[in-house]
Amino acid sequence: MRKVIIDTDTAGDDTIALLTAMHSFKVEGVTITGGNVDFDQQVENALYTIQVANPEEYVPVYKGMEGPLLTSVVERHQTVEDVHGKDGMGDSFFEKAKQRPEQGHAVDFIIDKVKSNPGEINLLAIAPLTNIAMAIKKDPTIIYDIPHIYIMGGTNNSLGNITAAAEYNFFVDPEAAKIVLHSGIPITLVGWDMCTKYSIMDDDDHKEIENLSTKGSAFFIQINKVVMKFNKEVHRLNGTTHPDTLLVAIAANEELMAKSNKYFVDVETKGELTRGYSMVDINNRSGHEPNVRVCEEVNRNQFKEHVLDVLTSIS
Amino acid sequence: MRKVIIDTDTAGDDTIALLTAMHSFKVEGVTITGGNVDFDQQVENALYTIQVANPEEYVPVYKGMEGPLLTSVVERHQTVEDVHGKDGMGDSFFEKAKQRPEQGHAVDFIIDKVKSNPGEINLLAIAPLTNIAMAIKKDPTIIYDIPHIYIMGGTNNSLGNITAAAEYNFFVDPEAAKIVLHSGIPITLVGWDMCTKYSIMDDDDHKEIENLSTKGSAFFIQINKVVMKFNKEVHRLNGTTHPDTLLVAIAANEELMAKSNKYFVDVETKGELTRGYSMVDINNRSGHEPNVRVCEEVNRNQFKEHVLDVLTSIS
Amino acid sequence: MRKVIIDTDTAGDDTIALLTAMHSFKVEGVTITGGNVDFDQQVENALYTIQVANPEEYVPVYKGMEGPLLTSVVERHQTVEDVHGKDGMGDSFFEKAKQRPEQGHAVDFIIDKVKSNPGEINLLAIAPLTNIAMAIKKDPTIIYDIPHIYIMGGTNNSLGNITAAAEYNFFVDPEAAKIVLHSGIPITLVGWDMCTKYSIMDDDDHKEIENLSTKGSAFFIQINKVVMKFNKEVHRLNGTTHPDTLLVAIAANEELMAKSNKYFVDVETKGELTRGYSMVDINNRSGHEPNVRVCEEVNRNQFKEHVLDVLTSIS
Amino acid sequence: MRKVIIDTDTAGDDTIALLTAMHSFKVEGVTITGGNVDFDQQVENALYTIQVANPEEYVPVYKGMEGPLLTSVVERHQTVEDVHGKDGMGDSFFEKAKQRPEQGHAVDFIIDKVKSNPGEINLLAIAPLTNIAMAIKKDPTIIYDIPHIYIMGGTNNSLGNITAAAEYNFFVDPEAAKIVLHSGIPITLVGWDMCTKYSIMDDDDHKEIENLSTKGSAFFIQINKVVMKFNKEVHRLNGTTHPDTLLVAIAANEELMAKSNKYFVDVETKGELTRGYSMVDINNRSGHEPNVRVCEEVNRNQFKEHVLDVLTSIS
Ligand SMILES: [Ca+2]
Ligand SMILES: [Ca+2]
Ligand SMILES: [Ca+2]
Ligand SMILES: [Ca+2]
Repeated sequence: MRKVIIDTDTAGDDTIALLTAMHSFKVEGVTITGGNVDFDQQVENALYTIQVANPEEYVPVYKGMEGPLLTSVVERHQTVEDVHGKDGMGDSFFEKAKQRPEQGHAVDFIIDKVKSNPGEINLLAIAPLTNIAMAIKKDPTIIYDIPHIYIMGGTNNSLGNITAAAEYNFFVDPEAAKIVLHSGIPITLVGWDMCTKYSIMDDDDHKEIENLSTKGSAFFIQINKVVMKFNKEVHRLNGTTHPDTLLVAIAANEELMAKSNKYFVDVETKGELTRGYSMVDINNRSGHEPNVRVCEEVNRNQFKEHVLDVLTSIS
Repeated sequence: MRKVIIDTDTAGDDTIALLTAMHSFKVEGVTITGGNVDFDQQVENALYTIQVANPEEYVPVYKGMEGPLLTSVVERHQTVEDVHGKDGMGDSFFEKAKQRPEQGHAVDFIIDKVKSNPGEINLLAIAPLTNIAMAIKKDPTIIYDIPHIYIMGGTNNSLGNITAAAEYNFFVDPEAAKIVLHSGIPITLVGWDMCTKYSIMDDDDHKEIENLSTKGSAFFIQINKVVMKFNKEVHRLNGTTHPDTLLVAIAANEELMAKSNKYFVDVETKGELTRGYSMVDINNRSGHEPNVRVCEEVNRNQFKEHVLDVLTSIS
Repeated sequence: MRKVIIDTDTAGDDTIALLTAMHSFKVEGVTITGGNVDFDQQVENALYTIQVANPEEYVPVYKGMEGPLLTSVVERHQTVEDVHGKDGMGDSFFEKAKQRPEQGHAVDFIIDKVKSNPGEINLLAIAPLTNIAMAIKKDPTIIYDIPHIYIMGGTNNSLGNITAAAEYNFFVDPEAAKIVLHSGIPITLVGWDMCTKYSIMDDDDHKEIENLSTKGSAFFIQINKVVMKFNKEVHRLNGTTHPDTLLVAIAANEELMAKSNKYFVDVETKGELTRGYSMVDINNRSGHEPNVRVCEEVNRNQFKEHVLDVLTSIS
Repeated sequence: MRKVIIDTDTAGDDTIALLTAMHSFKVEGVTITGGNVDFDQQVENALYTIQVANPEEYVPVYKGMEGPLLTSVVERHQTVEDVHGKDGMGDSFFEKAKQRPEQGHAVDFIIDKVKSNPGEINLLAIAPLTNIAMAIKKDPTIIYDIPHIYIMGGTNNSLGNITAAAEYNFFVDPEAAKIVLHSGIPITLVGWDMCTKYSIMDDDDHKEIENLSTKGSAFFIQINKVVMKFNKEVHRLNGTTHPDTLLVAIAANEELMAKSNKYFVDVETKGELTRGYSMVDINNRSGHEPNVRVCEEVNRNQFKEHVLDVLTSIS
């Protein structure tokens, strides 16, 4: 099994993505970055999700950067309790998991694990890219030892989610995104546009999942309650969105990508309206070398099947 | 017939848009803004196009701003001879028209014509918005006297043309675009995305047009030679693009718009990658009042028919 | 007598500068730009000041741009009634002057006057540079016909007044300042630093002026009442400041400049803290060609004498 | 003796500052940040300087961030070999010191040392603030444990050195400077303006120092050869500049500050001309709470005496 570290701001779909990762990879560790909801809540959400999955091998959880590279200690980044519920788990308010977070900083864990397993640790990035950017800045030599980063972030010349111009992960820490995109590490990007086109689970899908009647399926239904309502009202999307799960599924099985191409991708950090905008330079008007493989089409049926397999397996 | 002033950086599709405007409106005047190619060449292109149309009533041409609001006298904005040919007319190098441009500045012409015909003069804007912004700044009271501006510009959460982030007209003078969009004048926006989806004329369309065997159809074929090649190579579009003609046709017949909605639209003027990016805030994440009606779908067949009618009528 | 147009946002020291200009030049016209206080109030202030001076030849007043290049019609720029009083005249609330503003726009007046007197009309700029920038944009050929612009604006590597980084005139319309500074017209710049070092009139000076017992001296005392208080409280300056009068006096008698040098000068338009900051590149770290003669020292005694002469002459 | 960590981009005056620090404080460690010259050369310069000082207690040297927070791995920040010589030591090309740098990262060293000595470790910052900002971001709780940071950086409404607008340390990493200035840690700032007014050693001073005939004085003369020439040509300053030494001397003896005040200080990160500009809001036009004590006058004689004492003591 391929080894991964998964970096997550655990709330909502991050949990299903975590289940998917533990199902499809040898997860060396889970690192938490500030993002969706209160940081400590995210840590608890990750630990609880691992408890739900009950994996054979111990999966350690490391606390990382609580907020973006450039915010000061007093400032806070924008969280999205409206999307995922106050606890980021559809207002489920689960009990605390027994497992506790590790000592040591997520950034050091990433560096140490990568340096001691050169060429073996892929990164699954489903949160603002703060931890990964910090790791690259602290030890730039890791760029030669990471075979691939799969990133959920940005949007390919399409509508964003947190603003019209930007997707949440890139919006929260565009400077971190810029550092990672230009690091030289091979990257696959799955944007918010792929999520809205191919990952939506509508009421019928939810019924089908509920009927699986496993612990996994019950968990899925539970944590998606708030986001279903939010999506209908705000994004006018008729179902729940699964960007992070889609990213992990694609990393596990690249054939899910029906179409992809390498493009020059960059992130706006200076704009007044466009902070966090991801430029995907389809027609290469900039003349820059492509640096990112961008997912452009997904085999939706295979993806759904993958998710159902995961949820079925957790009994 | 409704009265219009058409503001154009006459090159390529601007000419067919001019023919369409003279066919469908009482054109009170043509004003030239710096844009596609050399300014004086644009003036000649407009005059030549009027000569081709040979309209019953005299259509005056006014020279306006030769470049964007903020460039200094010595700087030049980016022109696009690669798209439209050196002369902006498919390298046709036509003879000079007999009609000459008027004395007086386009900005003053717009103000005077609007103020002496309050509520009657619609603007068709198919170029960078420099002239119109200058007119608004010089006499802000015109905003109450202009019933509507139809603008070809920007792109609705889609790929740009001059950069991945921006469409040419907004890119060249984003500050002017910002002034016009926030002026309070009612606006309909037809973006580059509508052009690539609904306005393309492919080889078969060109043959059909050629077979009309009118002076108009011959002119169409002639001036589109360079852009056909450019589009195939750079934009991977299999045909010629007609954003300006689409804008004028929609202004003439709003039923061509199969779908449109009012959204908050703004322009990025500060970004590093996103200068000229048009934010179309579909899900109103910004909370701002909608200020622009945005065209979202076009009846392609009706549009094509409209163009063929225009070209047939010029014999 | 040398011919000038003086462009002013008439309030406070602008009035004494106007008196000085009428005393020292043939003033072809006064043009009003949006700045210090309500626009129409500024127009009245200019007209009233001309009435106080009672010049032999008629001095026309033209209304120009009511606000900066880039603000929309609804937005307003920052005015400074706290500095100059509600009426911009030390809360004097004078009666309306008999003279009325001219028909025609200040921008057109500048262009027409300059084009019909090539090489003869110097500009005295003691307001945001909106009118002058608009004139340059509307008819760029005037740059060859204006021998010199004297500008009160910016600050030479010193504290600003409206923000720590910026002087008011440049802050209100930095884009206009940029256009003028890079126009190629020969420029002399007198910054806010010269004003705080050499133009301050303290209580003793005010007594000396009061004792002149002329109409001019009474007017001086009257309009400076609010600013004296403001300067003590906000800028910790012990007296009234006369940046505009200093500018005009220097234009009238360049020997008042005890030291000046040509430097590259530019204006920040993009900064978060530094909008309107004037870069005076003393050690030429940028490598750009000098474009502005910057006043670095003033003969204070001669300046004061000049002001007293002006006030004495108005009886 | 008070405990300090000194963070330095060791080249030129950083060396004399290091000597001064070892003379006046218990130096717990020297941390190296990318700045003046090649990073590894800076490390060697620090080690060599310690060897020159030959301190009683071992002073460890830790390698830190090789460049600013936001540059990508491939980009390089601007170094200044023209100021300090190719080796940053006046082209002296000294032999390698025997002491070698420690294992472990400077950022971790700062965090660990501060956390294990709460309230005891002052920071002397004489380089771009990258290391210190990274430490604050990695463990924000250190802000409560650091009693004071003394920072050489920025300029107080005066001319910069690397650009007209900015001083080198703030220019190289303005984002880091912003994080540190807004961290809440008590700060004293000594700007470039203090350096040019009070720290210059002219030819006479150099002769006096040479005549001390100690190992310290010989070292001073040697490493200052290139900067003397550079200052005369570029900054038109008649002598060598000692910003870092001035900072350390002031930290050691605050009475050297003849005048200081608390102001709101911020750094521009967005400007086109003003990247790294330090806003010192003397008249509090921004209304923000003061966050930095800014040195405004220095007792020059005492400072010179302090330097001579240090150089005399190294024999
Ligand atoms: Ca996530
Ligand atoms: Ca056009
Ligand atoms: Ca003024
Ligand atoms: Ca240093």
